[in-house]
Parts: sequence; C-alpha cells; structure tokens
Amino acid sequence: MKHCFSFFLLSLIALTQSFAQNKILTLDDAVQQQWRMFRPEHYDGMQPYGSSDFTYVEKYRVVQKIESSSGKAIKLVSTDEINKSLSESGAAAIAYFPFWDYSWKTDKLLSFKNETTQYLYDIDAKKMVSVIELPENAANIHPNPKSNYLAYTVENNIFLTDSSKVKKQITLDIDKGIVNGSDYVHRQEFGIDKGMFWSPKGNFLAFYRKDETMVADYPLTNISTPIASVTNIKYPMAGAKSEEVTLGIYELKSGKTVFANVTDFTSERYLTSITWSPDEKFVFIGVLNREQNHLKLNKYESSTGNFVKTLFEEKHPKYVEPEKPLIFFPNSSTDFLFFSERDGYNHLYHYDTDGNLKSQLTKGEWVVMDFLGFDKKNQTVYISATKDSPIEQNYYKVDIKSSDIKRLTPEVGVHEAVFSSDKKYILDTWSNTQTPNKSVIYNSEGKPLHKLIDAKNPLKEYNIGELTLGTLKADDGKTDLHYRMITPPDYDKKKKYPVLIYVYGGPHLQLIRNSWLADARLWEFYMAQLGYIVFSIDNRGSANRGRDFENVIHRRCGQIEMQDQMTGVNFLKSLPFVDTERIGVHGWSYGGFMTASLLVNYPETFKVGVAGGPVIDWKYYEVMYGERYMDTPEENPEGYKKTSLLTQAAGLKGRLLIIHGYQDPVVVPQNSIDFQRAVISAGTDCDYFLYPEAEHNVFGADRTHLMQKVTRYFEDYLKK
Amino acid sequence: MKHCFSFFLLSLIALTQSFAQNKILTLDDAVQQQWRMFRPEHYDGMQPYGSSDFTYVEKYRVVQKIESSSGKAIKLVSTDEINKSLSESGAAAIAYFPFWDYSWKTDKLLSFKNETTQYLYDIDAKKMVSVIELPENAANIHPNPKSNYLAYTVENNIFLTDSSKVKKQITLDIDKGIVNGSDYVHRQEFGIDKGMFWSPKGNFLAFYRKDETMVADYPLTNISTPIASVTNIKYPMAGAKSEEVTLGIYELKSGKTVFANVTDFTSERYLTSITWSPDEKFVFIGVLNREQNHLKLNKYESSTGNFVKTLFEEKHPKYVEPEKPLIFFPNSSTDFLFFSERDGYNHLYHYDTDGNLKSQLTKGEWVVMDFLGFDKKNQTVYISATKDSPIEQNYYKVDIKSSDIKRLTPEVGVHEAVFSSDKKYILDTWSNTQTPNKSVIYNSEGKPLHKLIDAKNPLKEYNIGELTLGTLKADDGKTDLHYRMITPPDYDKKKKYPVLIYVYGGPHLQLIRNSWLADARLWEFYMAQLGYIVFSIDNRGSANRGRDFENVIHRRCGQIEMQDQMTGVNFLKSLPFVDTERIGVHGWSYGGFMTASLLVNYPETFKVGVAGGPVIDWKYYEVMYGERYMDTPEENPEGYKKTSLLTQAAGLKGRLLIIHGYQDPVVVPQNSIDFQRAVISAGTDCDYFLYPEAEHNVFGADRTHLMQKVTRYFEDYLKK
Repeated sequence: MKHCFSFFLLSLIALTQSFAQNKILTLDDAVQQQWRMFRPEHYDGMQPYGSSDFTYVEKYRVVQKIESSSGKAIKLVSTDEINKSLSESGAAAIAYFPFWDYSWKTDKLLSFKNETTQYLYDIDAKKMVSVIELPENAANIHPNPKSNYLAYTVENNIFLTDSSKVKKQITLDIDKGIVNGSDYVHRQEFGIDKGMFWSPKGNFLAFYRKDETMVADYPLTNISTPIASVTNIKYPMAGAKSEEVTLGIYELKSGKTVFANVTDFTSERYLTSITWSPDEKFVFIGVLNREQNHLKLNKYESSTGNFVKTLFEEKHPKYVEPEKPLIFFPNSSTDFLFFSERDGYNHLYHYDTDGNLKSQLTKGEWVVMDFLGFDKKNQTVYISATKDSPIEQNYYKVDIKSSDIKRLTPEVGVHEAVFSSDKKYILDTWSNTQTPNKSVIYNSEGKPLHKLIDAKNPLKEYNIGELTLGTLKADDGKTDLHYRMITPPDYDKKKKYPVLIYVYGGPHLQLIRNSWLADARLWEFYMAQLGYIVFSIDNRGSANRGRDFENVIHRRCGQIEMQDQMTGVNFLKSLPFVDTERIGVHGWSYGGFMTASLLVNYPETFKVGVAGGPVIDWKYYEVMYGERYMDTPEENPEGYKKTSLLTQAAGLKGRLLIIHGYQDPVVVPQNSIDFQRAVISAGTDCDYFLYPEAEHNVFGADRTHLMQKVTRYFEDYLKK
Repeated sequence: MKHCFSFFLLSLIALTQSFAQNKILTLDDAVQQQWRMFRPEHYDGMQPYGSSDFTYVEKYRVVQKIESSSGKAIKLVSTDEINKSLSESGAAAIAYFPFWDYSWKTDKLLSFKNETTQYLYDIDAKKMVSVIELPENAANIHPNPKSNYLAYTVENNIFLTDSSKVKKQITLDIDKGIVNGSDYVHRQEFGIDKGMFWSPKGNFLAFYRKDETMVADYPLTNISTPIASVTNIKYPMAGAKSEEVTLGIYELKSGKTVFANVTDFTSERYLTSITWSPDEKFVFIGVLNREQNHLKLNKYESSTGNFVKTLFEEKHPKYVEPEKPLIFFPNSSTDFLFFSERDGYNHLYHYDTDGNLKSQLTKGEWVVMDFLGFDKKNQTVYISATKDSPIEQNYYKVDIKSSDIKRLTPEVGVHEAVFSSDKKYILDTWSNTQTPNKSVIYNSEGKPLHKLIDAKNPLKEYNIGELTLGTLKADDGKTDLHYRMITPPDYDKKKKYPVLIYVYGGPHLQLIRNSWLADARLWEFYMAQLGYIVFSIDNRGSANRGRDFENVIHRRCGQIEMQDQMTGVNFLKSLPFVDTERIGVHGWSYGGFMTASLLVNYPETFKVGVAGGPVIDWKYYEVMYGERYMDTPEENPEGYKKTSLLTQAAGLKGRLLIIHGYQDPVVVPQNSIDFQRAVISAGTDCDYFLYPEAEHNVFGADRTHLMQKVTRYFEDYLKK
C-alpha cells in the first residue's frame, strides 16, 4: 500500500490552473449549463464534404462548408432557403436544421431528417428534390444508399417507401413479441445500434428479427394514467429464457426474404458484426454462443441464406465480446479488417474471406478505439487509439504492409477528428485539462495548416476549485489506476474537508481522461465549491485499458472494483486535508451498485452514499450484459451470492439513499424495492426516492431536482 | 383564540400519575410489547354462558366458567381434553384454543374454529361431536345457527357442507369478477363485516353477490417473485364505474336461489343493514343510493325476492350512513329497533314492519354506540353510549315505554361489558387513565357483586412521562375538542421541548378517550422519553361526537380538521416549555393525508412530518368512502382541487417523509408515487420509503423497523 503512495508522489501531475475570478456556480449552472453556456466554442455536425472539405451546422440554421485549402467557412445553405423551397411546394417548414442527422448524397444533394420526415435538397438548384413523410410512429428509418427508398418500422414490422408514396410492407408479424428491424436487439450489446442493414449497392436489406414471445414480462407501473396502469416490457433475467434472433435478407427486386441459416450453438445465440460483402453476394455474421465465450465468424449466401463457411473462431475462458462489423478494403470483396481483443488489447486484424489471417495490423498494450478509413491507395489506415496514454485519444496512420504507425495529432489530450474523403486533410478538435477546445486542420502527415477554433475558457470568471489528475498503483503492485481530484476553491491545506467519491466502475466506461475538465461533470466542481474534495478513480473493469484489465471482474462484479476504489480511499486518507471520518460516495447504475456495495462492505469507511438506479442483485439484471460478466445464477451461485446486496443488507451502517427511475427498463425497479425489503428484514435502514416518470436516467428539468436531492443528502449527513 | 385558551385553563384536568421508578422503554418495548408484556391483566374471549354465567379462555388453553352467583372461575374444558378426544378419533390435535372464534351452541356443546376446521365438542361427554375440515382456501365460514351446516366460500363461490362431508355448491360463477358471499362488499363500509346471513331458523342463507367485472383494475406489483409480477385488484376510484351488488336468498330445502328484486336508484346502489325477519318470511335491506344521501328501508319476500314495501326513508343534504342491521324484539316479527343519526346523534328508534315509527327510544347530544339486548320481559334495552362524556363509554338500561335511562357502570372511564343471557348480570371490564384494568360483576341495576380483576400497572417501574387530557374550544367558539398531551419524564418547565403531534383526524375514529394510557400508543410515551412533547387532538370530523361534528368535512376533507389541529398548535404555542420552532407531525392513512396537508398549508408551523399511507388526492380514493365525504370529482371539482396535495406540492417547505405499503389495497401507492412526481415538478422535495410487502398498515416485526424509521426522521430533522 505504501509502495503505491510513493509511486503516486512521483507520478502526480498538477494540471491545475488558477483563475483570478470568483464567481460561484449555482446548482442549475452545474446541472443544466455544462453543455450550454459553459460549453466551450465548438463545431456541431462536422462531416467530410466533397473530396477534401468539411461541413458543419451553425446554430441549427446554416450549413457551412470549411474549405480545407484555405480554412475558410463558406455558407452552403440555410433553413431560410430550405423553407422557401418547402413553402413553394406547399410543404411544412422546418424549425431547425438537424446537425445530428444529415448527410451528403453527392456534393449537391443534402439529405436530412426531421422527426419522421426525410428531405433531399439540391443546394445548387435551391430546390427540394423530395420530401418523404413517414407515419408519426415510424422508427428505425434507414435511407437506401443508392436510391430514394427508405426502410423503416412501424411497431414490429418493416416497411419500404419512396417519394412516389409507394409503400410496401416487408414483414407481416402480427404477434408483437416478434420484432423486425428494431435497433433494440440483444439489448444493444455487441455494439448494436441498428436493426437494418442496406447492402452496399442498395439491392438487399438485411434485418434482425427478434422473437421475444418466450421472454418474461417485467411490469412497469405508470402512475400518470387516471388509475395506475402497467406496461409490460420483455426482460430476460440472467439464467432465464432469452430472446431468439435471426437475420432476414430481403431482396428488393424479387420482394422475397430468406433467412440466414444459422445453426451454431443454441437458438439463444447472438448475431453480431453484421456485414455485407461489397459485392452483395454474402452476409457475414459473428455468431456468439449464449455463454459468450465462443465466436464463429460465419459467411452466408445472401440469395439463399445458406451457410457458406466459418472464417475463423475465437474463444476465451471468460468471454469474447465482438463489437464491430467487418471493414472491407476499398475495391475488394475479399480482404477485410476485423477488431479483436484476442491478444489482450483491441487491435485490427487483416483477413480474407476464406478465413486466412493475413496480418495483425496493430499491436501493443493499448487499444484501437475507432477505424477512420483507408487512404486512396489502400496503403494506409487511419485509426484513433490510446497508444500514447490510456487517458488520451489520438489519431494515427498505420502502414498496412509494415504496420508502422505514426501519430497525426501532436497535442496532448483527447482528440475527435474528421478526415476528408480523400484523406488529405484532418479536421481535428481536441481539448485537455488546460485547453477548453481547439479545432485545427492538419494535412495527412499531421502538419497543422489552419487554426479554426481556440475556445475561451467559459468558466474563466468562476472559482471552480483545483483539478488534479494522477495515478495510483493497484494492490496487485503493478496496475496503474488513474484518478481525478477536485479540491475546494481556495482550500486550506491545514483544514480537513469531507470527501465525495463519484464512482461508476463498470465496464465500457472511463471516467477520467485528459480532456477539458477531465470529463468531470460540472456538478463535481459545484460540490467542491460547497467544500467537498471530489474524487474519482477508474478501477480495474473500466474501459480503454484492455481485455485483462476489464475481465478481472468476471463472475465477481464489484469485488476487484471495490479494492481499487479503496486504493483511492487509502490515498485520500494519506492526505492531511482529508477528513477521514467524512467520506461519501455517489454513483448511478453500475456506480449505484458500487456505491451500495462500498457502504455494506466498508461500513467503517463510508459514512454516506447516494446510489442511483443500482443493480442490487445480478439475478435481476438481463442476460446479455449480466451473463457476460457473471455467468448464470446456476453456473455461479457463489458469485451471485457474494455480490448480492440483498444478502448483505445487514452490513449497512452508513446513510444510504437509493434513487430509482420508476420506469427504468434497464435496471428494473425490482432491484431497489427488493433492497428495501432486505434492509427491513435485516433491521438496518436506507432512504429511498423514486422519479416516477424517469427511465434509467433522469433528464431535463427533473435532473436539477435530482442533483439537488443528491447534494442535500450529502449536506445533511456528510457535511454536518 | 384567546377565549379558547382561558377556557382551557379552566377545563384542564391533570390526570397524571407519577411513578417512583425510572426504567426506560426500548423501541421494541414500545412497538411490540404494548399488547403483550405491557398489557394489564385482563380476560380473553369473555362471553355469556348458560343463562347467567360467563366463559373466558385462559392462556389459549383452558375455557373457564365464571359463576355469576359466586364470582368464581371453574374450569370447563382444556385443549388437553379436546386433543385427547381428537386423538381417539384419529384427528389432528389443535395447538391452541381460539378465544376469538368460539361459541356455545348449548350449555354443553362448544363450537369453535381453527383455521378452516370447525369443531363441535361435548364438554359433558368429553367427546368431539363433529370435525368439519374445509379446504385450505375456504373463507367466510358461517355455521348454520340451528344445524351442523357450514356455509363458506372458495374463491368466488359459496359452498355448503356438514360433518357427513356432503358438499354442495350454491353459486356457479366462473368469472372471478363476480364474487359471492364475501365479507368484502362495498369495501366494508356501512358496518359490513360479513357476506352471508343465515336466517334465524337456519332454513335460508342470504348472501351478497358482488359484480365487479366492470370495475377498473389497480395493479399492485409483487417484487418477491423471481421477476416482478402484478396482482390486479378491483379498485373503483371516486367518480369511476363502481361495483353492482345484489342479495341472493338460497333456500336449503329446495336448493333454489332467488334474488331480492331491488330497483331503487341506479345499480351502483348500496345494500346495507341486511336483516332477516325472525319468522324468515322477509329480508330487510337498507337500500342507499350511490350518492349516499337517500336511504330506503325496504322489505322483500324471502321466498320470491319480491319487493314488499319501503318502511321508511331517510335523506340528508350531505350523507346518510346506515351501519347497523335491524334489531327485532324477542318473540316479535313485527317490532324492531333501528339506529339512525337523523336527529344529529346516533339513537335507537322503535319501528314496526309496516314502517310505523312507534317511538324514539334514546335522545340527546350523545351517541348510542352499541345495543346489548333486551331484558326477558321486553321492557328494557341495554346499550353502551357516550351519554356521560364523549371520551367515555358506559352501559345503560333504557325503559322502552318511558325512555328512562339509567347508567349501570358507575366508574368513570371506558367500559366493555358482557351481559349474561338472562340480563341479570353484567361482567364489566373498564379502565381510565388512573386504572389499568378492572373486571367486576354487577347485577342488572349496576350494583357491584364480585370483584374479579384489579390489574397492576405494568408500567409501574417505567418513567413514562406525564399524561394530560383536556379540552380546547374550536375556532367556532363553541365546539369542545379533546386533546391528549404527554410530556417528557421529569421535564423542566423552564426549558423548551420539541413537539410531535400525532394525528388521524378522519371520520370513524377517536384518538382520545379516558381509558388506560388514554388510548395512546406506547410509542408516544417512548417519544416523550426521547424528549418530545407528544400531542393529539380529536378534530371535528372524528368519531363519537354526532353527525354534525363529523359532517362539516363534507366536500372539503382536511380543511376544518386542519383548523382544529391548529387550535391545538396555538394552545401548544401558549405553553412556555414548548419550542415553537420545532413542531412535527405524524399520522397514517387519513392521518398521513392530514400530515402532508398540514405541512403544505402551514409551512411556517410544521418543520417535519412523517406521513404514512397517505391519501394524496381524493380522486385516487375509492367510491364508497370517498364519495360519501367528497362527492365525485365531477360534482365537486373545487373541493378536490382544494384538498389535493398534488396541486399544493409547491407549498412544501418542511421535511416530509412519506411511507407507503407497496401492497396497499386501501390507499393505493399511486397516491404517494404521484406526489413524488408533483414535488419534482414543483421543485420542492420529500423523502420516501416503501414497505414492499406491507398492505395499508405495517405489522409484525416490520413495525419496529417502521417506527424506528419514523423516530429517526424526527431525531434527524426535528430534534437537532
């Protein structure tokens, strides 16, 4: 333990910046304004345009082109012009331009969607080419890449239409338990964000068909009806009967649908990484068994659905987690890249469609986060990765033959880059703890060409406390854990301050990065202003540190994570200005689970906790995420018991407030309500509050109420 | 306001008794032991026996006779003897003798029921005469008064059986929404406590048939199933479609059922005061309209169900509330007594079955609480009443001809008496604030014959604080309101103490009587020991003070009640040892409604409140009780709005904890959950807790947890 502290003292980097100003944040500032008045200047909806330029949207109204050669912004089109054209054709005006939902079909044809209406506008002719109005309850809208067809769903079926108002129903399921084309398949694990897949040339539409008729209902109670009513959602709890998913392949020309003939494992398998071959002849599916420890990358014939071959397989004693589709080389229907964590880190592998591994493109103790494209000659790929620091994101070019890698974004921090279509220009936007936001155009070698934005610090006039990032050694003596600490403004190191630990701790998320405010929520600075030391640490299990950093949690969620949180606590206790008698913890979701777990496992340390939407027992969580980390209750009874807060309610000593969205379809309310039963039965106590209309998170105006409630709880019980 | 205080000073009666001892109650003592170790010595299951004696049950094991002539107890039978006889016939033993469920068929034949088995035992022959085992799910078991037949229900139908194991199904409803013979009709308003009515000679069985197929479902969520599940209960909310109830009349001989042909008002009428004529020829029904302001006392022919005539009608602009059956004179099928509040107080009226009013038997500004019987010559009736004090209950004999009334229980306090069958002896059990419990046998003139019990004070060794009863004038300048105050043990009148007001406030209940501990719960003394002044006042609207005292609440529940509570608060504020900055309030059900109402209406007065199972908006309450006091939301929109806590959530300033049984079928959880929505929306705050398995009240071991929670809330926020 001492060892890690001495290490800390060496590795401590004070990234603090002190401001001469002294404004104080209000709670509303902290909760509602982080992404509004306190958001540094930035671009919305940046995209590549033409071969080497970009477009973005200004104030929801004007689509601006950024000319890479000059760095200048040139107006392309405004909502006024669009509305003039709409008015001429008698169509309704649009109130704003949706920067999150537009694309360029050609340099001239601007496609965008508002609610359930799809527009195609010619910026040269200043004419609306087509307006397709879908029914109000249309969802999952996917434009065909080559034609004016739109695929969409109404309730549980898929429809097709175009501007000529032709409407065609592709699936005909009457039972609402059979859901076609929805993006909500496998509960959106495995990187799934859509349920329909147009083939590259637009001749086929592949789609998920989810049969959940056999999945148990979870009843959510709606109290806003005159008499309370129930909405049943399908919720497969760990170990229970799960959904069965198949992949349909619809051919536009014939109007016929075939299904991929997947026979591996049981019918509760997962169909992941859905990818069309560029020639449309094949569909690839990463077929994963329900146990999630055996992946087969399979090839199916699109015209028949017939299985062709298994290209390769991946296994791991804990779990395999495919999250990305195949990436075909331009102008090739045989060579592709595939993401895999098989060597311990997420890297790119070059395969051909016969299943031959041609090379491992990237390698090292860091992870590839995203793939940005190939250069024109297919010699180079562009990626983002954590190669230079696990708390930074940079962009790199990788030579396909040599695997040589070169960083393109020179500045320290977290970068978000858009590459021009010809890959000659990079529009990089980045921040770090010292830099609110900068946008710069680089050439393809990372040489800066034009400075676009150098945002002012919107908190310049506020006295927001000191921000420190650092690392601690985990109790294995080798793993670095990153932490973030915010100390009260003008704090007196001779005094002792209460500590508020903000925790998430679960997989797929990283709290601490070297970005503006280090990714902290403004509320943390608000709490620092109230006199708390606000601390977070990314424990083992969290994201972007590789497979083995994450999968230590397997079959024992929370256990290792708590050890690492305690490493943070022990560090805090070593600081002279920390009041070790007043340590509180707050988190939501997995962080709610962590909060409650810390209170019952370390009752002598944690005086107060606020757990939002917490998993209380993994038996109440769903199959897809839950079984990956915990296996089933039957397979892992000790693990379920050990991690259950129901069985540990007697250990609760501190003050624990549990908050839950009463409509939560992710962590169902049974968790927190059963915990109340458990504390009653154990003779201990917790506090409780419901957000009757909230789902897994509390948004909008209610969020101020929520954070006021959380704040008040610490003020009531930790501050005093 | 000053006027009422000077009145108070005159009327203050210090009933306090100080003890030399100094033990302190634990919370468990206070919550679990009031009716166990702290219950004064008393008789269980006292009943008349033979012509002039009584029986009671000792320690669940021995049936004792009390001989009126000598006052001596003589053992009649024990569970050992009963079990010996059961063992001989190969039947299962009983674990205890049910003092709450036994009766004498003759002097020798003892009938009793354990769970769903009905026993008939001959105490002379020491033989079990019959054992009728009903199915485990049998309910509503009613023995025929003249034969060995039992009527009972299984699910929604009625069955008949006898010891020969003949089983006959009387009703054949398949739809579970049609419920026969259940005691849960009209939600047990109107004094309804059974759903089947044997005729006096045992030849007919009248029964309620409740059709609630058209009543809306309220979904109660059960979290103890592997995945949460819903139990729908039928819950007719104010203004919504209500149940339709009819009365079936089954004849044993013919096996046929007719239905009383009730045609008055709409089909949502109430059938109250169900009574057989002694000759079995007629059934009387108090038919009340849904509006509850018009009662018709109707006579129906039992053989055909035909309507014969309306004996009389009662109307009131607010409401009429029949709660008792007709009481026929012995050996008469024509003359009966009927309870009515028509002159403003509950009194007895002598009618004949042609509807002629022969006399008003009792009269005055007090209420008859119960009818105990006639003397052998039909010259006298015995009643209990509040004639001598609204906070006492005494027994009286009333001369039928002259209406002369004579008190039979001389001691001040609350009496519970049993009369011998021949009305020659009265076994009176009574208490007052000075007297834990006494039992005495009087003769029919109220002359004491034998002293039986003079219980010791079980709290003698405890320092439980001082108890004071008194009256205050309501702000109408004339109405007396009774209060109870418990001050901390050995309190220092020069110091200032926080106040905890315990409130109910609704109709049908009276908190303060001159009985042992003045009906206070031991928890109130526990809180006094913690340093609180604990105060209650029976506001207008509460029980035993007459019709107009109660019905001021009509169409405005809570409003007048709060005025009277504030009369109590103003009195408290006049006391030098009251800390006027620390006043809290706690109540359950109507008292929960009152608690929340007081916090939002008098935010400057009430710093802390704990509201249990509260009505939050009367629109969420049921038809039967709700519409009596509030009319429907359509008829009384202003009243509903004025009393709704949803519309007043913005006025909440103090700390309010709301606690609710998640299975509450009386005040459904929608009330408190919607209140959370309201406070979120109003930007105010409350605290919340659910008892996941509790219904409208929290019983058993969980009750200690509950009261610990309530206590802690006041300790956290009021004490500090």
